[in-house]
Amino acid sequence: MDIYSGRFVLILILSFISKSSSQSIIQISPEKYHKSSAADLIYCDSWRFSVETNDAGIWTQVPSRCQDYVHDYLTGVRYRSDSEMVALNSLDFAKTVEFAGNGKDAWVFDIDETLLSNLPYYALHGFGSETFDEVSFDEWVDLAEAPALPASLKLYKELQEMGFTIFLLTGRSEIQRNVTVKNLQYSGYRNWEKLILRGPADSGKPAIVYKSERRKLLQDEGYTIHGSSGDQWSDLLGFAVAQRSFKLPNPMYYIA
Amino acid sequence: MDIYSGRFVLILILSFISKSSSQSIIQISPEKYHKSSAADLIYCDSWRFSVETNDAGIWTQVPSRCQDYVHDYLTGVRYRSDSEMVALNSLDFAKTVEFAGNGKDAWVFDIDETLLSNLPYYALHGFGSETFDEVSFDEWVDLAEAPALPASLKLYKELQEMGFTIFLLTGRSEIQRNVTVKNLQYSGYRNWEKLILRGPADSGKPAIVYKSERRKLLQDEGYTIHGSSGDQWSDLLGFAVAQRSFKLPNPMYYIA
Repeated sequence: MDIYSGRFVLILILSFISKSSSQSIIQISPEKYHKSSAADLIYCDSWRFSVETNDAGIWTQVPSRCQDYVHDYLTGVRYRSDSEMVALNSLDFAKTVEFAGNGKDAWVFDIDETLLSNLPYYALHGFGSETFDEVSFDEWVDLAEAPALPASLKLYKELQEMGFTIFLLTGRSEIQRNVTVKNLQYSGYRNWEKLILRGPADSGKPAIVYKSERRKLLQDEGYTIHGSSGDQWSDLLGFAVAQRSFKLPNPMYYIA
Repeated sequence: MDIYSGRFVLILILSFISKSSSQSIIQISPEKYHKSSAADLIYCDSWRFSVETNDAGIWTQVPSRCQDYVHDYLTGVRYRSDSEMVALNSLDFAKTVEFAGNGKDAWVFDIDETLLSNLPYYALHGFGSETFDEVSFDEWVDLAEAPALPASLKLYKELQEMGFTIFLLTGRSEIQRNVTVKNLQYSGYRNWEKLILRGPADSGKPAIVYKSERRKLLQDEGYTIHGSSGDQWSDLLGFAVAQRSFKLPNPMYYIA
Protein backbone atom coordinates (compact mmCIF):
# COMPACT_ATOMS: atom_id res chain seq x y z
CA MET A 1 0.00 0.00 0.00
CA ASP A 2 1.50 3.30 -1.06
CA ILE A 3 0.13 5.92 1.28
CA TYR A 4 1.67 8.80 -0.63
CA SER A 5 0.24 8.31 -4.09
CA GLY A 6 -3.06 9.26 -5.66
CA ARG A 7 -4.25 5.69 -5.40
CA PHE A 8 -4.49 6.00 -1.66
CA VAL A 9 -4.78 9.67 -0.93
CA LEU A 10 -8.40 10.06 -1.84
CA ILE A 11 -9.42 12.55 0.74
CA LEU A 12 -8.85 15.81 -1.01
CA ILE A 13 -8.55 19.30 0.19
CA LEU A 14 -12.17 19.91 -0.70
CA SER A 15 -13.19 17.38 1.89
CA PHE A 16 -10.59 18.66 4.35
CA ILE A 17 -11.86 22.16 4.49
CA SER A 18 -15.01 22.94 6.37
CA LYS A 19 -18.38 22.17 4.92
CA SER A 20 -19.31 25.81 5.38
CA SER A 21 -16.81 26.80 2.76
CA SER A 22 -18.86 26.22 -0.35
CA GLN A 23 -17.10 29.06 -2.09
CA SER A 24 -13.70 27.39 -1.97
CA ILE A 25 -11.50 28.61 -4.78
CA ILE A 26 -9.43 25.46 -5.16
CA GLN A 27 -10.09 22.49 -7.35
CA ILE A 28 -7.58 19.69 -7.08
CA SER A 29 -8.10 16.42 -8.86
CA PRO A 30 -6.52 13.09 -7.90
CA GLU A 31 -4.45 13.01 -11.11
CA LYS A 32 -2.52 15.99 -9.89
CA TYR A 33 -1.00 14.08 -6.99
CA HIS A 34 2.72 13.80 -7.24
CA LYS A 35 5.13 11.02 -6.76
CA SER A 36 8.25 12.05 -4.91
CA SER A 37 11.26 9.76 -5.04
CA ALA A 38 11.84 7.51 -2.04
CA ALA A 39 14.91 9.54 -1.07
CA ASP A 40 12.89 12.76 -1.25
CA LEU A 41 10.14 11.28 0.92
CA ILE A 42 12.60 10.38 3.64
CA TYR A 43 14.46 13.66 3.40
CA CYS A 44 11.23 15.68 3.46
CA ASP A 45 9.80 13.66 6.37
CA SER A 46 12.96 14.58 8.28
CA TRP A 47 12.74 18.19 7.14
CA ARG A 48 9.17 18.31 8.45
CA PHE A 49 10.30 16.77 11.75
CA SER A 50 12.91 19.50 12.08
CA VAL A 51 10.55 22.38 11.32
CA GLU A 52 7.72 21.07 13.52
CA THR A 53 10.06 20.56 16.50
CA ASN A 54 11.64 24.00 15.86
CA ASP A 55 15.04 22.35 15.42
CA ALA A 56 15.33 24.09 12.04
CA GLY A 57 14.90 27.54 13.59
CA ILE A 58 14.08 30.32 11.15
CA TRP A 59 13.40 29.11 7.62
CA THR A 60 12.06 31.11 4.71
CA GLN A 61 10.84 28.68 2.06
CA VAL A 62 9.94 25.04 1.57
CA PRO A 63 13.03 23.29 0.08
CA SER A 64 12.51 22.80 -3.65
CA ARG A 65 12.83 19.02 -3.38
CA CYS A 66 9.99 19.02 -0.81
CA GLN A 67 7.43 21.04 -2.79
CA ASP A 68 5.51 18.00 -3.98
CA TYR A 69 5.81 16.39 -0.56
CA VAL A 70 4.32 19.43 1.21
CA HIS A 71 1.57 19.68 -1.39
CA ASP A 72 0.65 16.03 -0.89
CA TYR A 73 0.90 16.27 2.91
CA LEU A 74 -1.44 19.25 3.06
CA THR A 75 -4.01 18.05 0.57
CA GLY A 76 -4.00 14.42 1.75
CA VAL A 77 -5.09 12.69 4.90
CA ARG A 78 -2.00 13.39 6.98
CA TYR A 79 -2.49 17.09 7.66
CA ARG A 80 -6.06 16.38 8.65
CA SER A 81 -4.98 13.50 10.85
CA ASP A 82 -2.21 15.51 12.54
CA SER A 83 -4.62 18.39 13.21
CA GLU A 84 -7.13 16.00 14.74
CA MET A 85 -4.47 14.48 17.01
CA VAL A 86 -3.49 17.93 18.32
CA ALA A 87 -7.14 18.73 19.02
CA LEU A 88 -7.46 15.43 20.85
CA ASN A 89 -4.35 16.18 22.95
CA SER A 90 -5.79 19.61 23.74
CA LEU A 91 -9.15 18.21 24.80
CA ASP A 92 -7.50 15.52 26.93
CA PHE A 93 -5.60 18.23 28.78
CA ALA A 94 -8.66 20.51 29.04
CA LYS A 95 -10.53 17.73 30.84
CA THR A 96 -7.90 17.75 33.59
CA VAL A 97 -8.11 21.50 34.24
CA GLU A 98 -9.43 22.55 37.62
CA PHE A 99 -11.60 25.55 36.97
CA ALA A 100 -11.47 28.60 39.20
CA GLY A 101 -15.03 29.12 38.03
CA ASN A 102 -14.76 32.91 38.08
CA GLY A 103 -14.79 33.30 34.30
CA LYS A 104 -11.03 33.74 34.30
CA ASP A 105 -10.15 30.28 32.98
CA ALA A 106 -8.72 31.16 29.58
CA TRP A 107 -7.65 29.46 26.38
CA VAL A 108 -5.78 31.40 23.71
CA PHE A 109 -6.10 30.58 20.01
CA ASP A 110 -4.05 31.90 17.15
CA ILE A 111 -6.08 32.42 13.96
CA ASP A 112 -4.25 31.70 10.68
CA GLU A 113 -3.54 27.98 10.16
CA THR A 114 -5.00 27.43 13.65
CA LEU A 115 -8.69 28.39 13.59
CA LEU A 116 -8.81 29.39 9.92
CA SER A 117 -7.13 27.64 7.02
CA ASN A 118 -5.53 29.65 4.25
CA LEU A 119 -4.95 26.53 2.18
CA PRO A 120 -7.13 27.87 -0.66
CA TYR A 121 -4.72 30.81 -0.94
CA TYR A 122 -1.54 28.75 -0.58
CA ALA A 123 -2.79 26.19 -3.09
CA LEU A 124 -2.56 28.96 -5.68
CA HIS A 125 0.87 30.03 -4.43
CA GLY A 126 2.88 26.84 -4.27
CA PHE A 127 2.12 25.79 -0.66
CA GLY A 128 5.05 27.72 0.80
CA SER A 129 7.39 27.20 -2.14
CA GLU A 130 6.93 30.76 -3.42
CA THR A 131 8.23 33.85 -1.64
CA PHE A 132 5.48 35.28 0.55
CA ASP A 133 3.62 38.14 -1.15
CA GLU A 134 1.93 40.28 1.47
CA VAL A 135 -0.15 42.24 -1.04
CA SER A 136 -1.84 39.22 -2.59
CA PHE A 137 -2.23 37.53 0.81
CA ASP A 138 -3.96 40.62 2.23
CA GLU A 139 -6.32 40.56 -0.74
CA TRP A 140 -7.16 36.98 0.16
CA VAL A 141 -7.73 37.99 3.80
CA ASP A 142 -10.08 40.74 2.63
CA LEU A 143 -12.26 38.14 0.93
CA ALA A 144 -13.03 36.75 4.43
CA GLU A 145 -13.56 33.29 2.97
CA ALA A 146 -10.94 31.21 4.76
CA PRO A 147 -12.56 27.97 5.90
CA ALA A 148 -12.30 26.66 9.45
CA LEU A 149 -9.82 23.91 10.27
CA PRO A 150 -12.47 21.31 11.15
CA ALA A 151 -10.62 19.84 14.13
CA SER A 152 -10.02 23.31 15.58
CA LEU A 153 -13.64 24.40 15.16
CA LYS A 154 -14.76 21.27 16.97
CA LEU A 155 -12.22 21.86 19.76
CA TYR A 156 -13.21 25.53 20.02
CA LYS A 157 -16.84 24.60 20.60
CA GLU A 158 -15.94 21.86 23.08
CA LEU A 159 -13.74 24.19 25.12
CA GLN A 160 -16.47 26.80 25.17
CA GLU A 161 -19.00 24.25 26.42
CA MET A 162 -16.56 23.27 29.17
CA GLY A 163 -16.46 26.86 30.35
CA PHE A 164 -13.19 28.23 28.99
CA THR A 165 -13.05 31.92 28.16
CA ILE A 166 -11.66 32.16 24.65
CA PHE A 167 -9.16 34.75 23.47
CA LEU A 168 -8.07 35.10 19.87
CA LEU A 169 -4.54 36.42 19.52
CA THR A 170 -3.44 37.03 15.95
CA GLY A 171 -0.57 38.63 14.08
CA ARG A 172 -3.14 40.26 11.81
CA SER A 173 -3.40 44.03 12.02
CA GLU A 174 -6.17 46.16 13.59
CA ILE A 175 -7.07 47.39 10.10
CA GLN A 176 -8.08 43.79 9.32
CA ARG A 177 -10.44 43.55 12.31
CA ASN A 178 -13.69 43.77 10.39
CA VAL A 179 -12.79 41.23 7.72
CA THR A 180 -11.36 38.93 10.37
CA VAL A 181 -14.57 39.03 12.42
CA LYS A 182 -16.57 38.48 9.26
CA ASN A 183 -14.41 35.49 8.28
CA LEU A 184 -14.53 33.93 11.75
CA GLN A 185 -18.31 34.16 11.79
CA TYR A 186 -18.57 32.87 8.22
CA SER A 187 -16.56 29.83 9.29
CA GLY A 188 -18.61 29.07 12.37
CA TYR A 189 -16.75 30.71 15.26
CA ARG A 190 -18.85 32.49 17.86
CA ASN A 191 -18.68 34.13 21.28
CA TRP A 192 -14.99 34.73 21.81
CA GLU A 193 -14.19 37.03 24.71
CA LYS A 194 -11.77 39.26 22.86
CA LEU A 195 -10.08 39.41 19.47
CA ILE A 196 -6.56 40.81 19.87
CA LEU A 197 -4.82 42.18 16.76
CA ARG A 198 -1.58 44.10 16.26
CA GLY A 199 -2.02 47.78 17.02
CA PRO A 200 0.21 50.61 15.79
CA ALA A 201 2.52 50.17 18.81
CA ASP A 202 3.11 46.52 17.85
CA SER A 203 4.38 47.34 14.39
CA GLY A 204 7.71 45.70 13.71
CA LYS A 205 7.71 43.66 16.91
CA PRO A 206 8.67 40.00 16.54
CA ALA A 207 5.54 37.87 16.85
CA ILE A 208 6.93 36.05 19.88
CA VAL A 209 7.32 39.37 21.76
CA TYR A 210 3.97 40.82 20.70
CA LYS A 211 2.13 37.63 21.64
CA SER A 212 3.95 37.21 24.95
CA GLU A 213 3.16 40.82 25.91
CA ARG A 214 -0.51 40.34 25.15
CA ARG A 215 -0.68 37.11 27.15
CA LYS A 216 1.02 38.93 30.01
CA LEU A 217 -1.70 41.60 29.90
CA LEU A 218 -4.34 38.88 30.15
CA GLN A 219 -2.57 37.40 33.18
CA ASP A 220 -2.37 40.88 34.72
CA GLU A 221 -6.16 41.09 34.28
CA GLY A 222 -6.45 37.95 36.39
CA TYR A 223 -6.83 35.32 33.69
CA THR A 224 -5.20 31.92 34.02
CA ILE A 225 -4.09 30.83 30.57
CA HIS A 226 -4.56 27.08 30.79
CA GLY A 227 -4.03 26.30 27.13
CA SER A 228 -2.72 27.95 24.01
CA SER A 229 -3.04 26.70 20.42
CA GLY A 230 -0.97 27.85 17.49
CA ASP A 231 0.75 26.63 14.34
CA GLN A 232 3.89 28.71 15.05
CA TRP A 233 6.32 28.31 17.94
CA SER A 234 6.16 32.10 18.24
CA ASP A 235 2.50 31.63 19.20
CA LEU A 236 3.52 29.44 22.13
CA LEU A 237 6.99 30.32 23.47
CA GLY A 238 8.41 33.52 24.98
CA PHE A 239 7.02 34.64 28.34
CA ALA A 240 3.63 34.46 30.05
CA VAL A 241 3.24 31.09 28.37
CA ALA A 242 0.21 28.88 28.89
CA GLN A 243 0.22 25.92 31.26
CA ARG A 244 0.16 23.72 28.17
CA SER A 245 0.87 24.74 24.61
CA PHE A 246 -0.33 22.93 21.52
CA LYS A 247 1.61 23.12 18.27
CA LEU A 248 -0.49 22.63 15.17
CA PRO A 249 1.23 21.46 11.99
CA ASN A 250 2.40 23.99 9.41
CA PRO A 251 5.10 23.06 6.90
CA MET A 252 4.30 26.09 4.68
CA TYR A 253 5.85 29.05 6.46
CA TYR A 254 7.67 30.18 9.59
CA ILE A 255 7.02 33.31 11.65
CA ALA A 256 9.73 34.33 14.15
CA MET B 1 7.16 2.27 -3.80
CA ASP B 2 6.31 1.21 -0.29
CA ILE B 3 8.75 2.93 2.00
CA TYR B 4 7.60 1.07 5.06
CA SER B 5 8.14 -2.51 4.00
CA GLY B 6 11.15 -4.75 4.02
CA ARG B 7 11.58 -4.32 0.27
CA PHE B 8 12.65 -0.75 0.77
CA VAL B 9 13.85 -0.53 4.31
CA LEU B 10 17.15 -2.22 3.80
CA ILE B 11 19.25 -0.17 6.14
CA LEU B 12 18.96 -2.12 9.30
CA ILE B 13 19.68 -1.33 12.85
CA LEU B 14 23.04 -3.03 12.52
CA SER B 15 24.09 -0.40 10.01
CA PHE B 16 22.44 2.37 12.02
CA ILE B 17 24.39 1.78 15.15
CA SER B 18 28.00 2.81 15.30
CA LYS B 19 30.67 0.71 13.69
CA SER B 20 32.44 0.58 17.03
CA SER B 21 29.64 -1.55 18.38
CA SER B 22 30.71 -4.90 17.10
CA GLN B 23 29.21 -6.56 20.14
CA SER B 24 25.66 -5.50 19.32
CA ILE B 25 23.16 -7.90 20.81
CA ILE B 26 20.47 -7.46 18.19
CA GLN B 27 20.00 -9.32 14.98
CA ILE B 28 17.11 -8.17 12.83
CA SER B 29 16.56 -9.59 9.39
CA PRO B 30 14.53 -7.93 6.61
CA GLU B 31 11.84 -10.59 6.80
CA LYS B 32 10.94 -9.43 10.28
CA TYR B 33 9.69 -6.06 9.08
CA HIS B 34 6.04 -5.53 9.75
CA LYS B 35 3.25 -4.23 7.66
CA SER B 36 0.96 -1.89 9.52
CA SER B 37 -2.42 -1.12 8.01
CA ALA B 38 -2.75 2.16 6.14
CA ALA B 39 -4.99 3.54 8.89
CA ASP B 40 -2.43 2.57 11.53
CA LEU B 41 0.37 4.25 9.58
CA ILE B 42 -1.51 7.51 9.42
CA TYR B 43 -2.63 7.33 13.04
CA CYS B 44 0.89 6.48 14.23
CA ASP B 45 2.50 9.19 12.10
CA SER B 46 0.14 11.64 13.85
CA TRP B 47 0.88 10.10 17.23
CA ARG B 48 4.59 10.59 16.57
CA PHE B 49 3.96 14.20 15.53
CA SER B 50 2.15 14.80 18.81
CA VAL B 51 4.84 13.24 21.02
CA GLU B 52 7.75 14.89 19.20
CA THR B 53 6.14 18.35 19.42
CA ASN B 54 5.24 17.71 23.09
CA ASP B 55 1.55 18.19 22.27
CA ALA B 56 0.86 14.80 23.84
CA GLY B 57 2.39 15.83 27.17
CA ILE B 58 3.19 12.98 29.54
CA TRP B 59 2.73 9.54 28.00
CA THR B 60 3.74 6.20 29.46
CA GLN B 61 3.74 3.65 26.67
CA VAL B 62 3.69 3.36 22.89
CA PRO B 63 0.03 2.77 21.86
CA SER B 64 -0.45 -0.91 21.05
CA ARG B 65 -1.51 -0.19 17.47
CA CYS B 66 1.79 1.70 16.95
CA GLN B 67 4.18 -1.00 18.19
CA ASP B 68 5.05 -2.24 14.70
CA TYR B 69 5.24 1.32 13.42
CA VAL B 70 7.71 2.39 16.11
CA HIS B 71 9.76 -0.76 15.56
CA ASP B 72 9.96 -0.08 11.83
CA TYR B 73 10.68 3.63 12.33
CA LEU B 74 13.58 2.95 14.67
CA THR B 75 15.15 0.10 12.75
CA GLY B 76 14.65 1.62 9.31
CA VAL B 77 16.04 4.66 7.55
CA ARG B 78 13.75 7.26 9.08
CA TYR B 79 15.18 7.42 12.60
CA ARG B 80 18.65 7.68 11.14
CA SER B 81 17.52 10.37 8.70
CA ASP B 82 15.73 12.39 11.40
CA SER B 83 18.80 12.19 13.66
CA GLU B 84 21.02 13.40 10.84
CA MET B 85 18.70 16.33 10.12
CA VAL B 86 18.83 17.46 13.76
CA ALA B 87 22.63 17.25 13.72
CA LEU B 88 22.64 19.31 10.54
CA ASN B 89 20.36 21.94 12.11
CA SER B 90 22.66 22.02 15.13
CA LEU B 91 25.79 22.48 13.06
CA ASP B 92 24.14 25.20 10.95
CA PHE B 93 23.38 27.11 14.12
CA ALA B 94 26.83 26.44 15.62
CA LYS B 95 28.43 28.08 12.60
CA THR B 96 26.59 31.33 13.38
CA VAL B 97 27.76 31.50 17.00
CA GLU B 98 30.05 34.39 17.90
CA PHE B 99 32.61 32.96 20.26
CA ALA B 100 33.67 34.82 23.37
CA GLY B 101 36.89 32.86 22.96
CA ASN B 102 37.47 32.55 26.70
CA GLY B 103 36.67 28.84 26.87
CA LYS B 104 33.19 29.61 28.18
CA ASP B 105 31.27 28.88 24.96
CA ALA B 106 29.33 25.80 25.95
CA TRP B 107 27.18 23.12 24.38
CA VAL B 108 25.20 20.71 26.57
CA PHE B 109 24.44 17.16 25.51
CA ASP B 110 22.11 14.67 27.10
CA ILE B 111 23.40 11.08 26.95
CA ASP B 112 20.75 8.37 26.51
CA GLU B 113 19.14 8.42 23.05
CA THR B 114 21.22 11.55 22.36
CA LEU B 115 24.89 10.59 22.40
CA LEU B 116 24.36 6.91 23.15
CA SER B 117 21.71 4.65 21.69
CA ASN B 118 19.98 2.08 23.86
CA LEU B 119 18.26 0.53 20.86
CA PRO B 120 19.96 -2.85 21.47
CA TYR B 121 18.23 -2.91 24.88
CA TYR B 122 14.87 -1.63 23.67
CA ALA B 123 14.91 -4.06 20.73
CA LEU B 124 14.68 -6.82 23.34
CA HIS B 125 11.95 -4.98 25.26
CA GLY B 126 9.38 -4.02 22.67
CA PHE B 127 10.74 -0.59 21.66
CA GLY B 128 8.72 1.25 24.29
CA SER B 129 5.70 -1.03 24.18
CA GLU B 130 6.62 -2.75 27.44
CA THR B 131 6.46 -1.10 30.85
CA PHE B 132 9.90 0.28 31.72
CA ASP B 133 11.88 -2.09 33.94
CA GLU B 134 14.57 -0.13 35.78
CA VAL B 135 16.37 -3.22 37.05
CA SER B 136 16.94 -4.77 33.64
CA PHE B 137 17.75 -1.38 32.11
CA ASP B 138 20.40 -0.71 34.75
CA GLU B 139 21.90 -4.11 33.99
CA TRP B 140 22.14 -3.02 30.37
CA VAL B 141 23.76 0.27 31.41
CA ASP B 142 26.32 -1.68 33.46
CA LEU B 143 27.40 -3.51 30.33
CA ALA B 144 28.66 -0.14 29.01
CA GLU B 145 28.07 -1.29 25.44
CA ALA B 146 25.55 1.24 24.13
CA PRO B 147 26.67 2.35 20.67
CA ALA B 148 26.96 5.99 19.67
CA LEU B 149 24.23 7.60 17.62
CA PRO B 150 26.38 8.17 14.53
CA ALA B 151 25.00 11.63 13.70
CA SER B 152 25.53 12.78 17.28
CA LEU B 153 29.09 11.47 17.48
CA LYS B 154 29.91 13.32 14.26
CA LEU B 155 28.30 16.52 15.58
CA TYR B 156 30.09 16.16 18.92
CA LYS B 157 33.47 16.04 17.19
CA GLU B 158 32.61 18.94 14.88
CA LEU B 159 31.50 21.15 17.77
CA GLN B 160 34.68 20.31 19.66
CA GLU B 161 36.80 21.24 16.67
CA MET B 162 34.93 24.54 16.44
CA GLY B 163 35.90 25.33 20.02
CA PHE B 164 32.78 24.57 22.04
CA THR B 165 33.26 23.40 25.61
CA ILE B 166 31.16 20.26 25.96
CA PHE B 167 29.08 19.39 29.00
CA LEU B 168 27.26 16.09 29.39
CA LEU B 169 24.12 16.38 31.49
CA THR B 170 22.37 13.10 32.15
CA GLY B 171 19.56 11.72 34.28
CA ARG B 172 21.79 8.79 35.15
CA SER B 173 22.93 8.54 38.75
CA GLU B 174 26.37 9.22 40.22
CA ILE B 175 26.68 5.51 41.01
CA GLN B 176 26.64 4.94 37.25
CA ARG B 177 29.54 7.35 36.64
CA ASN B 178 32.22 4.75 35.97
CA VAL B 179 30.19 2.63 33.57
CA THR B 180 28.97 5.78 31.83
CA VAL B 181 32.50 7.06 31.27
CA LYS B 182 33.54 3.59 30.10
CA ASN B 183 30.60 3.45 27.66
CA LEU B 184 31.21 6.95 26.29
CA GLN B 185 34.86 6.14 25.64
CA TYR B 186 33.97 2.76 24.14
CA SER B 187 31.66 4.57 21.73
CA GLY B 188 34.15 7.18 20.66
CA TYR B 189 33.43 10.22 22.86
CA ARG B 190 36.43 12.09 24.23
CA ASN B 191 37.44 15.27 26.04
CA TRP B 192 34.21 16.52 27.52
CA GLU B 193 34.63 19.26 30.09
CA LYS B 194 32.37 17.72 32.73
CA LEU B 195 30.01 14.81 33.09
CA ILE B 196 27.07 15.81 35.30
CA LEU B 197 25.00 13.03 36.88
CA ARG B 198 22.22 13.03 39.46
CA GLY B 199 23.62 13.29 42.96
CA PRO B 200 21.84 12.27 46.17
CA ALA B 201 20.27 15.76 46.45
CA ASP B 202 18.68 15.34 43.00
CA SER B 203 16.85 12.17 43.91
CA GLY B 204 13.16 12.42 43.06
CA LYS B 205 13.48 15.75 41.27
CA PRO B 206 11.69 15.99 37.93
CA ALA B 207 14.27 15.84 35.13
CA ILE B 208 13.27 19.28 33.87
CA VAL B 209 14.06 20.82 37.27
CA TYR B 210 17.31 18.91 37.84
CA LYS B 211 18.58 19.76 34.36
CA SER B 212 17.56 23.42 34.56
CA GLU B 213 19.31 23.78 37.94
CA ARG B 214 22.50 22.30 36.57
CA ARG B 215 22.43 24.55 33.50
CA LYS B 216 21.90 27.51 35.83
CA LEU B 217 25.03 26.53 37.77
CA LEU B 218 27.01 26.49 34.51
CA GLN B 219 25.73 29.96 33.66
CA ASP B 220 26.65 31.13 37.15
CA GLU B 221 30.18 29.87 36.45
CA GLY B 222 30.28 32.18 33.45
CA TYR B 223 29.42 29.75 30.67
CA THR B 224 27.21 30.80 27.78
CA ILE B 225 25.11 27.81 26.79
CA HIS B 226 24.79 28.33 23.06
CA GLY B 227 23.25 24.99 22.23
CA SER B 228 21.61 22.06 23.95
CA SER B 229 20.80 18.65 22.47
CA GLY B 230 18.38 16.12 23.93
CA ASP B 231 15.75 13.58 22.97
CA GLN B 232 13.40 14.71 25.77
CA TRP B 233 11.69 18.09 26.12
CA SER B 234 12.76 17.93 29.78
CA ASP B 235 16.36 18.15 28.50
CA LEU B 236 15.58 21.43 26.79
CA LEU B 237 12.81 23.39 28.53
CA GLY B 238 12.54 24.83 32.04
CA PHE B 239 14.88 27.68 32.99
CA ALA B 240 18.48 28.61 32.09
CA VAL B 241 17.71 27.25 28.65
CA ALA B 242 20.22 27.33 25.82
CA GLN B 243 20.12 29.96 23.09
CA ARG B 244 18.98 27.18 20.77
CA SER B 245 17.66 23.77 21.74
CA PHE B 246 17.67 20.71 19.52
CA LYS B 247 15.11 17.95 19.99
CA LEU B 248 16.26 14.55 18.84
CA PRO B 249 13.63 11.95 17.94
CA ASN B 250 12.46 9.44 20.54
CA PRO B 251 9.11 7.68 20.13
CA MET B 252 9.98 5.03 22.75
CA TYR B 253 9.61 6.78 26.08
CA TYR B 254 8.87 10.09 27.80
CA ILE B 255 10.64 11.60 30.80
CA ALA B 256 8.90 14.50 32.55
